[in-house]
Amino acid sequence: MVVDVMLKPEILDPQGQAILGALPSLGVSGIAAVRQGKHFEIDVDGEMDEDALGRIRDLAGTLLANPVIEDFALRVEG
Amino acid sequence: MVVDVMLKPEILDPQGQAILGALPSLGVSGIAAVRQGKHFEIDVDGEMDEDALGRIRDLAGTLLANPVIEDFALRVEG
Repeated sequence: MVVDVMLKPEILDPQGQAILGALPSLGVSGIAAVRQGKHFEIDVDGEMDEDALGRIRDLAGTLLANPVIEDFALRVEG
Repeated sequence: MVVDVMLKPEILDPQGQAILGALPSLGVSGIAAVRQGKHFEIDVDGEMDEDALGRIRDLAGTLLANPVIEDFALRVEG
Protein backbone atom coordinates (compact mmCIF):
# COMPACT_ATOMS: atom_id res chain seq x y z
CA MET A 1 0.00 0.00 0.00
CA VAL A 2 1.31 3.43 -0.89
CA VAL A 3 0.46 6.71 0.84
CA ASP A 4 1.50 9.94 -0.87
CA VAL A 5 1.36 13.10 1.26
CA MET A 6 1.50 16.52 -0.38
CA LEU A 7 1.14 20.04 0.95
CA LYS A 8 -2.26 21.44 -0.03
CA PRO A 9 -2.05 23.45 -3.26
CA GLU A 10 -2.63 26.76 -1.46
CA ILE A 11 0.26 26.15 0.97
CA LEU A 12 3.68 27.46 -0.07
CA ASP A 13 6.16 24.64 -0.70
CA PRO A 14 9.68 25.95 0.00
CA GLN A 15 11.35 22.60 -0.81
CA GLY A 16 9.78 22.51 -4.26
CA GLN A 17 10.62 26.19 -4.82
CA ALA A 18 14.24 25.54 -3.86
CA ILE A 19 14.49 22.68 -6.38
CA LEU A 20 12.86 24.77 -9.10
CA GLY A 21 15.20 27.67 -8.36
CA ALA A 22 18.28 25.42 -8.57
CA LEU A 23 17.43 23.97 -12.00
CA PRO A 24 18.74 26.77 -14.27
CA SER A 25 22.18 26.71 -12.67
CA LEU A 26 22.22 22.92 -13.18
CA GLY A 27 21.45 23.33 -16.87
CA VAL A 28 17.92 21.91 -16.70
CA SER A 29 15.30 23.92 -18.57
CA GLY A 30 11.63 23.52 -19.43
CA ILE A 31 10.38 22.68 -15.94
CA ALA A 32 7.42 24.85 -14.90
CA ALA A 33 6.76 23.69 -11.34
CA VAL A 34 8.05 21.28 -8.71
CA ARG A 35 6.28 20.33 -5.51
CA GLN A 36 7.76 17.94 -2.97
CA GLY A 37 5.89 15.63 -0.66
CA LYS A 38 6.33 12.39 1.22
CA HIS A 39 5.90 8.85 -0.02
CA PHE A 40 5.23 5.91 2.30
CA GLU A 41 5.18 2.22 1.46
CA ILE A 42 3.25 0.25 4.06
CA ASP A 43 2.96 -3.53 4.41
CA VAL A 44 0.15 -4.96 6.51
CA ASP A 45 0.01 -8.22 8.42
CA GLY A 46 -2.31 -10.65 6.61
CA GLU A 47 -4.75 -9.73 3.88
CA MET A 48 -5.22 -6.23 2.47
CA ASP A 49 -8.95 -6.07 3.16
CA GLU A 50 -11.39 -3.26 4.00
CA ASP A 51 -10.34 -3.37 7.65
CA ALA A 52 -6.65 -2.98 6.82
CA LEU A 53 -7.47 -0.18 4.39
CA GLY A 54 -9.37 1.63 7.13
CA ARG A 55 -6.43 1.31 9.49
CA ILE A 56 -4.04 2.70 6.90
CA ARG A 57 -6.42 5.58 6.14
CA ASP A 58 -6.58 6.46 9.86
CA LEU A 59 -2.81 6.21 10.12
CA ALA A 60 -2.30 8.44 7.07
CA GLY A 61 -4.74 11.07 8.34
CA THR A 62 -3.27 11.26 11.83
CA LEU A 63 0.39 10.27 11.85
CA LEU A 64 1.68 10.54 8.27
CA ALA A 65 -0.11 13.70 7.15
CA ASN A 66 -1.04 16.88 8.97
CA PRO A 67 -4.60 17.39 7.67
CA VAL A 68 -4.45 21.13 8.38
CA ILE A 69 -1.84 21.72 5.68
CA GLU A 70 -1.49 18.41 3.81
CA ASP A 71 -3.57 16.13 1.61
CA PHE A 72 -2.90 12.43 1.25
CA ALA A 73 -3.71 9.82 -1.36
CA LEU A 74 -3.84 6.04 -0.91
CA ARG A 75 -2.87 3.70 -3.73
CA VAL A 76 -2.56 -0.06 -3.94
CA GLU A 77 0.72 -1.12 -5.51
CA GLY A 78 2.35 -4.42 -6.34
CA MET B 1 4.65 13.84 -13.84
CA VAL B 2 5.38 12.11 -10.58
CA VAL B 3 8.79 10.98 -9.31
CA ASP B 4 8.89 8.70 -6.26
CA VAL B 5 12.26 8.27 -4.59
CA MET B 6 12.84 5.45 -2.11
CA LEU B 7 15.90 4.19 -0.30
CA LYS B 8 17.09 0.95 -1.89
CA PRO B 9 15.66 -2.09 -0.10
CA GLU B 10 19.03 -3.04 1.39
CA ILE B 11 19.54 0.41 2.94
CA LEU B 12 18.27 0.90 6.50
CA ASP B 13 15.38 3.38 6.65
CA PRO B 14 15.41 5.04 10.09
CA GLN B 15 12.37 7.25 9.34
CA GLY B 16 10.24 4.24 8.43
CA GLN B 17 11.54 2.35 11.48
CA ALA B 18 10.62 5.27 13.73
CA ILE B 19 7.07 5.36 12.37
CA LEU B 20 6.71 1.59 12.73
CA GLY B 21 8.02 1.78 16.29
CA ALA B 22 5.56 4.53 17.23
CA LEU B 23 2.46 2.68 16.03
CA PRO B 24 1.78 0.41 19.04
CA SER B 25 1.77 3.35 21.45
CA LEU B 26 -0.68 5.10 19.12
CA GLY B 27 -3.02 2.12 19.18
CA VAL B 28 -2.41 1.05 15.58
CA SER B 29 -1.82 -2.65 15.05
CA GLY B 30 -1.43 -4.99 12.09
CA ILE B 31 1.23 -3.00 10.24
CA ALA B 32 4.23 -5.11 9.27
CA ALA B 33 6.55 -2.57 7.64
CA VAL B 34 6.78 1.13 6.80
CA ARG B 35 9.33 2.71 4.50
CA GLN B 36 9.44 6.43 3.83
CA GLY B 37 10.59 8.13 0.67
CA LYS B 38 10.10 11.34 -1.25
CA HIS B 39 7.39 12.24 -3.72
CA PHE B 40 7.79 14.95 -6.35
CA GLU B 41 5.15 16.39 -8.67
CA ILE B 42 6.72 18.07 -11.67
CA ASP B 43 5.04 20.17 -14.35
CA VAL B 44 6.85 20.77 -17.62
CA ASP B 45 6.58 23.68 -20.01
CA GLY B 46 4.71 22.58 -23.12
CA GLU B 47 4.00 18.99 -24.14
CA MET B 48 4.99 15.95 -22.09
CA ASP B 49 6.91 14.26 -24.91
CA GLU B 50 9.94 11.96 -25.04
CA ASP B 51 12.29 14.91 -24.70
CA ALA B 52 10.56 16.18 -21.56
CA LEU B 53 10.53 12.67 -20.14
CA GLY B 54 14.27 12.39 -20.72
CA ARG B 55 14.85 15.70 -18.95
CA ILE B 56 12.80 14.59 -15.95
CA ARG B 57 14.62 11.24 -15.85
CA ASP B 58 17.99 13.06 -15.80
CA LEU B 59 16.72 15.41 -13.11
CA ALA B 60 15.45 12.52 -10.97
CA GLY B 61 18.70 10.58 -11.29
CA THR B 62 20.94 13.51 -10.42
CA LEU B 63 19.14 16.07 -8.27
CA LEU B 64 16.11 14.33 -6.74
CA ALA B 65 17.59 10.92 -5.96
CA ASN B 66 21.04 9.84 -4.82
CA PRO B 67 21.58 6.80 -7.07
CA VAL B 68 24.10 5.30 -4.66
CA ILE B 69 21.45 4.68 -2.00
CA GLU B 70 18.11 5.47 -3.65
CA ASP B 71 15.92 4.17 -6.46
CA PHE B 72 13.40 6.31 -8.28
CA ALA B 73 10.27 5.62 -10.28
CA LEU B 74 8.59 7.90 -12.83
CA ARG B 75 4.85 7.88 -13.30
CA VAL B 76 2.54 9.97 -15.46
CA GLU B 77 -0.39 11.34 -13.49
CA GLY B 78 -3.35 13.51 -14.26
